[in-house]
Amino acid sequence: MKKKVDYTLYLCTDRSFMSTNTIEESVELALEGGCTVVQLREKDCSSKDFYDLAIRVKTITHRYDVPLIINDRVDIALAVNADGVHVGQSDLPASVVRKIIGDDKIIGVSASTKALALQAVADGADYLGVGAMYSTNTKTDAGVITIDTVKEIRKAVDIPMVVIGGINKNTVSNVKGIGVDGICVISAIVAQQNITQAAKDLKELFMKP
Amino acid sequence: MKKKVDYTLYLCTDRSFMSTNTIEESVELALEGGCTVVQLREKDCSSKDFYDLAIRVKTITHRYDVPLIINDRVDIALAVNADGVHVGQSDLPASVVRKIIGDDKIIGVSASTKALALQAVADGADYLGVGAMYSTNTKTDAGVITIDTVKEIRKAVDIPMVVIGGINKNTVSNVKGIGVDGICVISAIVAQQNITQAAKDLKELFMKP
Repeated sequence: MKKKVDYTLYLCTDRSFMSTNTIEESVELALEGGCTVVQLREKDCSSKDFYDLAIRVKTITHRYDVPLIINDRVDIALAVNADGVHVGQSDLPASVVRKIIGDDKIIGVSASTKALALQAVADGADYLGVGAMYSTNTKTDAGVITIDTVKEIRKAVDIPMVVIGGINKNTVSNVKGIGVDGICVISAIVAQQNITQAAKDLKELFMKP
Repeated sequence: MKKKVDYTLYLCTDRSFMSTNTIEESVELALEGGCTVVQLREKDCSSKDFYDLAIRVKTITHRYDVPLIINDRVDIALAVNADGVHVGQSDLPASVVRKIIGDDKIIGVSASTKALALQAVADGADYLGVGAMYSTNTKTDAGVITIDTVKEIRKAVDIPMVVIGGINKNTVSNVKGIGVDGICVISAIVAQQNITQAAKDLKELFMKP
């Protein structure tokens, strides 16, 4: 059965920006601080290494009863029986992913426009990753969108959406009160010296009225 | 149902060594010359590009009734309903691939030792890619093995095996009469000015008594 997801604080990993030695450490510290979803993103390792890592990370996320989403690689998601997969516009089309992965898994889709958001919903997406909100070091090719675009997408679709790209303690207040279900964070969590505290602080800043 | 495969002349693509503009052109010319299996190998393109390419190549291979095998990416193989997948020792384990891909698809495994070959058979491999036979420009990290190792593997396993790595018109005679089912070729076909003729010549050299 598809896991019911709390999208409030969605962690995305990036091994090049970590303050810890291993991704497992980062993930565990972030979960300790209240992350509610973990997406594992690996662009430059072998399939075997990605698979082995995903197995280790899944052991941790499941201990915290938090869903594990695999970026791009549907085969890795299937291989480790992850909770879902996240695809960008350069990955497999969501409609194709749905056929491969079945109805019980979560599919997230990156969307930077209303048209892409509507297409994602039509393709069977369970949630949207909307952004990039701000220019960021972790994904240098991502185009920045406006708060108005986020609002427009929010009006157009009724599936959960998280905002991504440059969300940190300074910018989080800008994405409150516009109907997004959560914030997706990379460096503002994993690059911090105190990952657990960073996660706690961001969650509190996003949730407090 | 699993396709019955003629492994005689197994083409593996590599876009960095092509004499043609597109992989589709290379594949079609090689099929015209008698290639019996096509493996699509893409290490540096997006999933979407790999998927789109695989769809286009499958249209060609199926016109020639030749199986299409996808290197490494089980999700791409599933997405395009390819005939099978080929995994190396740095890819998903064959036993895991079998669970994902089902019993009707072909799984090939790279094996450079008898132990790896036996493991591959135990994991459910349908055929082996054995090598590298000779040092090669297309896979610079591949360790070279001896003809004796090939013979040892041939004695130990009874699934089809193709040899790979530096097989060309000068070396092909060395891998005849040792019980291999076919030759796997990259640059000796796709890098040649006349791909069709190169394929024809290699097939003839390998098959003639």
